[in-house]
Amino acid sequence: MAIHGTSLIGQRDIVGSETTFRAIEATTGRPLDPVFGGAGKAELEQACALAADAFAAYRSTSPSDRAAFLDQIGVNIAALGELLIERCMSETGLPRPRIEGERARTIGQLRHFADALRDGPHIGERHTPADPERKPLPRPDLRLRHLPLGPVAVFGASNFPLAFSVAGGDTASALAAGCPVVVKAHPAHPGTSELVGRAVRDAVKACALPEGVFSLLFGVGNDIGQRLVADPRIKAVGFTGSRQGGMALMRTAAERPEPIPVYAEMSSINPVFLFPAALATRGEGIGRAFAAALTLGAGQFCTNPGLVLAVDGDGLEAFIGGAVEALHQSPPQTMLTAGIFDAYCRGVDFLGGQLRVETLTKEPTSDASAARPALFATTAVDFLEDKRLHEEVFGAASLIVRCRDQDEMSRVAATLEGQLTIAIHIDEEDHPSARALLPLLETKAGRLVVNGFGTGVEVDHAMVHGGPFPATSDGRSTSVGSLAIRRFLRPVCYQNMPGRLLSVGCNIAE
Amino acid sequence: MAIHGTSLIGQRDIVGSETTFRAIEATTGRPLDPVFGGAGKAELEQACALAADAFAAYRSTSPSDRAAFLDQIGVNIAALGELLIERCMSETGLPRPRIEGERARTIGQLRHFADALRDGPHIGERHTPADPERKPLPRPDLRLRHLPLGPVAVFGASNFPLAFSVAGGDTASALAAGCPVVVKAHPAHPGTSELVGRAVRDAVKACALPEGVFSLLFGVGNDIGQRLVADPRIKAVGFTGSRQGGMALMRTAAERPEPIPVYAEMSSINPVFLFPAALATRGEGIGRAFAAALTLGAGQFCTNPGLVLAVDGDGLEAFIGGAVEALHQSPPQTMLTAGIFDAYCRGVDFLGGQLRVETLTKEPTSDASAARPALFATTAVDFLEDKRLHEEVFGAASLIVRCRDQDEMSRVAATLEGQLTIAIHIDEEDHPSARALLPLLETKAGRLVVNGFGTGVEVDHAMVHGGPFPATSDGRSTSVGSLAIRRFLRPVCYQNMPGRLLSVGCNIAE
Repeated sequence: MAIHGTSLIGQRDIVGSETTFRAIEATTGRPLDPVFGGAGKAELEQACALAADAFAAYRSTSPSDRAAFLDQIGVNIAALGELLIERCMSETGLPRPRIEGERARTIGQLRHFADALRDGPHIGERHTPADPERKPLPRPDLRLRHLPLGPVAVFGASNFPLAFSVAGGDTASALAAGCPVVVKAHPAHPGTSELVGRAVRDAVKACALPEGVFSLLFGVGNDIGQRLVADPRIKAVGFTGSRQGGMALMRTAAERPEPIPVYAEMSSINPVFLFPAALATRGEGIGRAFAAALTLGAGQFCTNPGLVLAVDGDGLEAFIGGAVEALHQSPPQTMLTAGIFDAYCRGVDFLGGQLRVETLTKEPTSDASAARPALFATTAVDFLEDKRLHEEVFGAASLIVRCRDQDEMSRVAATLEGQLTIAIHIDEEDHPSARALLPLLETKAGRLVVNGFGTGVEVDHAMVHGGPFPATSDGRSTSVGSLAIRRFLRPVCYQNMPGRLLSVGCNIAE
Repeated sequence: MAIHGTSLIGQRDIVGSETTFRAIEATTGRPLDPVFGGAGKAELEQACALAADAFAAYRSTSPSDRAAFLDQIGVNIAALGELLIERCMSETGLPRPRIEGERARTIGQLRHFADALRDGPHIGERHTPADPERKPLPRPDLRLRHLPLGPVAVFGASNFPLAFSVAGGDTASALAAGCPVVVKAHPAHPGTSELVGRAVRDAVKACALPEGVFSLLFGVGNDIGQRLVADPRIKAVGFTGSRQGGMALMRTAAERPEPIPVYAEMSSINPVFLFPAALATRGEGIGRAFAAALTLGAGQFCTNPGLVLAVDGDGLEAFIGGAVEALHQSPPQTMLTAGIFDAYCRGVDFLGGQLRVETLTKEPTSDASAARPALFATTAVDFLEDKRLHEEVFGAASLIVRCRDQDEMSRVAATLEGQLTIAIHIDEEDHPSARALLPLLETKAGRLVVNGFGTGVEVDHAMVHGGPFPATSDGRSTSVGSLAIRRFLRPVCYQNMPGRLLSVGCNIAE
């Protein structure tokens, strides 16, 4: 298999008619071959028409058929071998173990949804039999099922070139639900996207599914993405990226003649609350573990711990000592793109330049694309006064908020926006204080982690990777784990429907 | 208990500071005592502040506590006795059996949600135990729960003064989920609203809940409702009413700094598909049953059958014969408000005045507020050409679309907007044709009814009262039946949370 620089419209390779672009090698900034053609109106039209055509046939496939399809995608991705790993390393600057791990995760995630389809084909169905004797009126037979919404637009994320990109969680959950998918590839890793797109497309063919079940569009700029969300045949959107990008898609979706749901995962600073007893007994160790979480993947995780809250004192100093020492030893890491690196540098420089912010560590970057971690501290009073300190710096930068006491820590907590995760570090003695704070924290995040960090999101039936706005556009769902299938389903009730006609319908596992 | 014309802000009666108004007796147009004061900014502020304050305590109540509260509301509504029935008849023009039936439904609905809370306190919870031996990394303990979103704004519907008003389905499901509720009363039945509001408020007190769990605001015009949806403390909206009204609330909710979900039930013409064998054997009977469904409650049901599709021929003529004869015998019925009556008359006059529309029956109204049913027919070609014929006429008016054949019927079906219900009338011989059409119909409605009509919505775990836009703003949910609780919940995952801290959290049944 080779990379051709073409959009994949159903089973066809189409050279886009809009602005061309190339991938950039992350470590060097050199452009890579081949040239990619940006998809235009005509390509979008074809992809959406094919998706709409494919919907009726695809949604009537059995859950086990869809499970086999998801498994086949995984097999095909594995078969891409070194070609995929090397191209992905080159485009993202992420090291081999991370890419290999992410590939395993992506394939495991496809299997997770396949298993959910196989194990529970009738979960989510509810049935109330007729009661002809009921007074004053007989009760009809009622059967509730979940049906797929229709074609889904998925936007690949830059920071998970495999697990949240072309065949990532959004695509897997939408396909599991019975929805055709049109992916807008992220321009930062187009070669990776095309390779994975071909793996999906080959699975479509191998499973004898209608070609419109999957299309992949390339493009730079926002135009093609906005058009995709505005297309009347698209019925839902999955997105992982910036707050600005997510909000723009939300607006477009809300302004359509037929508004549609947008599941955008946007921004989160993933606060970490350190409690006194835990800090007193193991402050330094928590600090080292924190540094490891902060620098994972150059800090380019949506669950990266960007804020730390603790009561000031010796325990916190021990934490800082452990963290700073570990961060000093952390090697510089290449960031995904020059744009992300520049934004990181600006964010770090901003924090470092604030009079009320203390710089705990901030080392000069060794070369133009490799970032060093940075750690800052401020007081709760200053943090509460300056909303700019609440903003995410995407990358391995974090801000410690020194609180006078538990009360002040609660007051800071109350001002936080919605988050993907909140971590708390507690010992037995901290339980009463944690108990007092938890009801507030529950309203602020999709996942609460005890004595750990939000990084490392399990693909599991009980996982929630989501959270109140602005962490996501819709806090009522998750983008990781089998519950994500529900995002692309709607309930339908069949009243007194004869059994042989019911079999026409689509049957969904959750 | 008496009617005072005051908003109910927590446990206090507040005379609103804005424009005053009175209820209007539906049959006579006479204003009724007392004067109601419209709530203004200050009253709204108080209600929302109380609701936000009450949220932490209310959501930590046990499901059985909330069940007892819902049951107590039902007991208190029943205790209002004749006062409620007579005031409601007077304000709505609906006959006694309907109001008594709706009261029973409302109380039964509260009990339905209470039963859902009692029977399944752990449904919706998912747990994956830790696996310390897993390679390469140990698996954490993961527990997924559903938590309430926060204070909910509910808008009373004019056409269900009890079952979808102050203590109706939206309020019951939000309270069941653990959300405080601020109701904006519908100005067409303010006395009914105040009486029921007092019943809810007394239940809040009897159950020793924080007063902010429930408030009731009065007001004419859209201002107070828009402000309520815009208030940052409100986290979700339940609405039943016009498309225009629902769309306005959707816009306000989407434009907030923190967008929130809106569950608006808006407009539906509830198409009825008549199949040939069923028409041939029992066309006249289906026609009479149709007339009964059409005229139920003066046609003021959101599931009212406003469109009939059938292949032209003797069977359809028999249907028309049965329907027209039954409609002739149908007495004039008072409509809910003069405004609704006027709109009905305009809609009927519009259809009657179209050259391409045949008037099958349209009788002069006997007096200024009592409406007679109307039945029209047109051809599929004309229907497809003129989008105005697709619009809902709220009331007992319906349009028959004569199709040349099954194919044309499918083509018309494909052009329909999202619906609450679609009914099909079939005999055994019709199954193959129905089988061919069902996959399309499934994408168009929240409920498919066989050999019946959408009117008469069972309060049941397997019910879906919802449907694709524009039937509702969000086709992923239902407003009737226990699945409605999910609308006001969000998932939260607890990772490695010690058991004694987990007990702090809120536990929700679905």
